[in-house]
Amino acid sequence: MNRHLISAGDLTKDDALLILDTAEELARVSERSIKKLPTLRGRTVVNLFFEDSTRTRISFEAAAKRLSADVINFSAKGSSVSKGESLKDTALTLEAMGADAVVIRHGASGAPHRLANWVHGSVVNAGDGTHEHPTQALLDAFSMRRRLGSLEGRKVTIVGDVLHSRVARSNVLLLDTLGADVTLVAPPTLLPVSVGSWPCEVSYDLDAVLPKSDVVMMLRVQKERMNAAYFPSEREYSRRYGLDRDRFAKMPEDAIVMHPGPMNRGMEIAAEVADSARSTIVEQVANGVTIRMAVLYLLLGGESA
Amino acid sequence: MNRHLISAGDLTKDDALLILDTAEELARVSERSIKKLPTLRGRTVVNLFFEDSTRTRISFEAAAKRLSADVINFSAKGSSVSKGESLKDTALTLEAMGADAVVIRHGASGAPHRLANWVHGSVVNAGDGTHEHPTQALLDAFSMRRRLGSLEGRKVTIVGDVLHSRVARSNVLLLDTLGADVTLVAPPTLLPVSVGSWPCEVSYDLDAVLPKSDVVMMLRVQKERMNAAYFPSEREYSRRYGLDRDRFAKMPEDAIVMHPGPMNRGMEIAAEVADSARSTIVEQVANGVTIRMAVLYLLLGGESA
Amino acid sequence: MNRHLISAGDLTKDDALLILDTAEELARVSERSIKKLPTLRGRTVVNLFFEDSTRTRISFEAAAKRLSADVINFSAKGSSVSKGESLKDTALTLEAMGADAVVIRHGASGAPHRLANWVHGSVVNAGDGTHEHPTQALLDAFSMRRRLGSLEGRKVTIVGDVLHSRVARSNVLLLDTLGADVTLVAPPTLLPVSVGSWPCEVSYDLDAVLPKSDVVMMLRVQKERMNAAYFPSEREYSRRYGLDRDRFAKMPEDAIVMHPGPMNRGMEIAAEVADSARSTIVEQVANGVTIRMAVLYLLLGGESA
Repeated sequence: MNRHLISAGDLTKDDALLILDTAEELARVSERSIKKLPTLRGRTVVNLFFEDSTRTRISFEAAAKRLSADVINFSAKGSSVSKGESLKDTALTLEAMGADAVVIRHGASGAPHRLANWVHGSVVNAGDGTHEHPTQALLDAFSMRRRLGSLEGRKVTIVGDVLHSRVARSNVLLLDTLGADVTLVAPPTLLPVSVGSWPCEVSYDLDAVLPKSDVVMMLRVQKERMNAAYFPSEREYSRRYGLDRDRFAKMPEDAIVMHPGPMNRGMEIAAEVADSARSTIVEQVANGVTIRMAVLYLLLGGESA
Repeated sequence: MNRHLISAGDLTKDDALLILDTAEELARVSERSIKKLPTLRGRTVVNLFFEDSTRTRISFEAAAKRLSADVINFSAKGSSVSKGESLKDTALTLEAMGADAVVIRHGASGAPHRLANWVHGSVVNAGDGTHEHPTQALLDAFSMRRRLGSLEGRKVTIVGDVLHSRVARSNVLLLDTLGADVTLVAPPTLLPVSVGSWPCEVSYDLDAVLPKSDVVMMLRVQKERMNAAYFPSEREYSRRYGLDRDRFAKMPEDAIVMHPGPMNRGMEIAAEVADSARSTIVEQVANGVTIRMAVLYLLLGGESA
Repeated sequence: MNRHLISAGDLTKDDALLILDTAEELARVSERSIKKLPTLRGRTVVNLFFEDSTRTRISFEAAAKRLSADVINFSAKGSSVSKGESLKDTALTLEAMGADAVVIRHGASGAPHRLANWVHGSVVNAGDGTHEHPTQALLDAFSMRRRLGSLEGRKVTIVGDVLHSRVARSNVLLLDTLGADVTLVAPPTLLPVSVGSWPCEVSYDLDAVLPKSDVVMMLRVQKERMNAAYFPSEREYSRRYGLDRDRFAKMPEDAIVMHPGPMNRGMEIAAEVADSARSTIVEQVANGVTIRMAVLYLLLGGESA
């Protein structure tokens, strides 16, 4: 496996399965109430967050601490970054301070890739612009596999604002690698122009796709975008693309519902759907910690401590 | 004991004494310079703070770390909470990430109670609106007991803005449970209408009450409230309700002075009173860490690690 | 050695050499890939930062964690400090919570000195106003010594805004103690009036001084000051005091270039100079963690745990 995790598209099928299998083992250890492993004692993981994302930061922090690593949180706000320091100098500084891994969230697509050229340690992309969020895709795949078994040939439908979603892109790339068949459902204005080259189908008709889906993944609607010209009205969006009780009834009996969170209950997903036994939404959070443990373990665990 | 600590009023006398006795043991261990205990190794305590309170957050953080727990700080500002995520979804997310206990500070009275309905782990109320702040009452009782012995029949006078004080309410409830006699002294406009049903006396005459007090607890004046119509002028407040040198002289010789901090020296309490040997103000801070250790130990320590 | 580290000027030569030698030992341990030492297990280090300084805070945090201390970060923004609590009450509070050392960054010169009068634990000055930044001077001296050997008789040139630089002042004091000869180069408006009493030379002609320098330390230009009346224009400053390629060529072949970071590449220092093999800028960051480990070890390590 590579030294970094920048893009879900970089992972071979073997890489991806290794991460999922490692996560499976870690989940089993955790289910035996062994919550802390000594694996990364003496290692330092820096969370370098240029955008607020308490959820993702805490998930990585919990993962690193369960492996006994030291965690240092670096919020770029109010730091020398805001005094004009370059990303490169920030990176070299963090590495010189002893960071073994840098987990980076950045508003600019490609920032983690650039970072990886400058440091000797591992870089983990925790979301860059509208580009990728590979650990989200991995935790989603892990959540599907724990519910449904192998992903080979599974029908996965991803619904919502694909245009601005790094989650959608990373999921399409990883699910394709793992042999699943992905269909994106979105208003035409919320699809990227490049979508024709993605390894997936596209549909504008959610009701037609639902009965054939093993997994329906609802994307988060970002309220700050809802007033934009390219965005349908809230009512229109909810009516055509929201997963309400009636639509939920059209899904096959054993199909599952996913959402990366945080949800807008009543908007893209009805509360009763979100809370149903076939929703994996809470599991996804727990699986997020497990997947990040697996990623940090595989990236850092091999070196001598 | 309950799985949560939401209200001082929920504690039976046995519960309260168990916490105080546990804190006493922890204080003795700490006095032997053993600062770190392995008790909560592998446990995760999340500080979920919707209001800034560095003091209380640090006190819980120090307590958890001395018991070897991992601590994750979650400030609701800039988090998905500010993106409209519900308290319920936040709670489920934190629990899914592995939080064994959530320490919550919230501006709305009752938020910790609601939280406790949603999670399987322990919830500790670190202050909710004008409702309760039970660990403050416990550390106050612990501070009194270390100075004066049993609280049975002790006369405790609480002075100031009772209306907005969760500290006053929690103290009244706990001290009553422990057998002390509480008198509240406040301007009529700074007493809640419900005070008639509280298990305590009320007085408007501080000078009359002081000579009969074993403990005088001054509440913090919150400067942002001082311009409100219901608030006396600063001079008037200080003159009638401030604990200055002359009033201090009216207290019995072995009576003690308390304040939850941070103080407005010269306003509700004179500097020389705050710094006198009969003031427990600094001890209260140290006892705060010890009490929070006892609470976390009792709530979390019993499960297998 | 003193219980505190407030000023580089307080250190005797023996003190300074003890810190540098301890750092040397710690660096060697670290080079053997032993990243975590148990020395300060059970100790608590509080970072009390009244000014944002992510770099310095992280450096102390990393240092304390490598010695197995618990670290609590206290940003004064939004804390009771902003509610009017005095520095003294903050200090007593932190100590009562169990802080063994307080690392303080404060906008007011002298704040760490006052703090040291109030607490029993150790105080480490992490930068106070325009006064001092002693661990920066120590890490700079350590970086010089690792490159050049003994500092006795070495020619060190410090260039830039000396007036506002606690780094310059601490370096002058420490380097004089260690036997080096320091020359300050700055526009007349960017020198403090007291500079005549400092143990160093002053020059306005960078080109004349460079060929005789073993070390050239460029100070950071703070962009927010550049529009002030006392400040030369950006172009003028860069032309007369910037270390560009031509000036770099005038330095002796084995002379080194330093900068405390973060840099304004192209302003006070050219990118190719900053990245040259004779620049110690990245080493300075790593050495910063090592020096802070040495300081915390010497201040705290002697007590029984």
